[in-house]
Amino acid sequence: MTRRDPINQTDDDARRLARRLIDAARFGALAVNDPGGPAPLVSRVAVAALDSCPHILVSDLSAHSAALVSDPNCALLLGEPGPKGDPLTHPRLTLVAVAGPADKAALRGAWLSRQPKSALWYDFADFRMLRLAPVAVHLNGGFGKAYRLGPDDL
Amino acid sequence: MTRRDPINQTDDDARRLARRLIDAARFGALAVNDPGGPAPLVSRVAVAALDSCPHILVSDLSAHSAALVSDPNCALLLGEPGPKGDPLTHPRLTLVAVAGPADKAALRGAWLSRQPKSALWYDFADFRMLRLAPVAVHLNGGFGKAYRLGPDDL
Repeated sequence: MTRRDPINQTDDDARRLARRLIDAARFGALAVNDPGGPAPLVSRVAVAALDSCPHILVSDLSAHSAALVSDPNCALLLGEPGPKGDPLTHPRLTLVAVAGPADKAALRGAWLSRQPKSALWYDFADFRMLRLAPVAVHLNGGFGKAYRLGPDDL
Repeated sequence: MTRRDPINQTDDDARRLARRLIDAARFGALAVNDPGGPAPLVSRVAVAALDSCPHILVSDLSAHSAALVSDPNCALLLGEPGPKGDPLTHPRLTLVAVAGPADKAALRGAWLSRQPKSALWYDFADFRMLRLAPVAVHLNGGFGKAYRLGPDDL
């Protein structure tokens, strides 16, 4: 089998798809570097795009929060398959990012309009909001539809 | 707010839930160490438990395959939320694992009985099967239901 470069040229369709996946996401899979071991960790987190940038609401009691304090480099998989169809042909993206502090009090209304169920724990002292500043995006729109995007493409 | 250890004592219910999540998984979020950057990568992969151990079918053209050649330490998030309910209360687990080679030809029937759609690409030369040998399991059965399991608990 002859190999080819599997990455396509980024175009406006790819940019729109990435934007749509980020804006629609309500949860995702967050990968962090585990300070206690050689493997990364990956866990489910609540997500909302606020001011166009993914934010996450995490508990200080969680392993991913502790890991992000140690190393803010992370990656977030967005684009959850629906109940039908092949999950591996469903569009998704990996956002490589750096996690930084966000103003939880100021973002309360914006977050809860996207994530109303988290009103139950939003104000808990151990929950903090983090902003995931994009470094790169690996977009997979399905087989043969792979793209690499930069922050400016979003 | 007083902190407490969020990890519960492992019991048979926790072991059964972990076993059930692993056996039921058809896809998951795989986190790997990126040899090209400081952040881990996370991507969606096809999964099937064969001989009780999660296996993945991945293309050599993918970024996660290249990363696993460089470093086989990885983590796999299993337990996908359904279309209803709160994704953050849906049970899931993170399997910390070491990826190793599996016999793709010998596992063909077992894999395709779980993943019939992958018959389209199973025999492609650039697709390989990897076995994810468990190192540890972080089980999250919902709020307040966190457990740590070892390989012997599975």
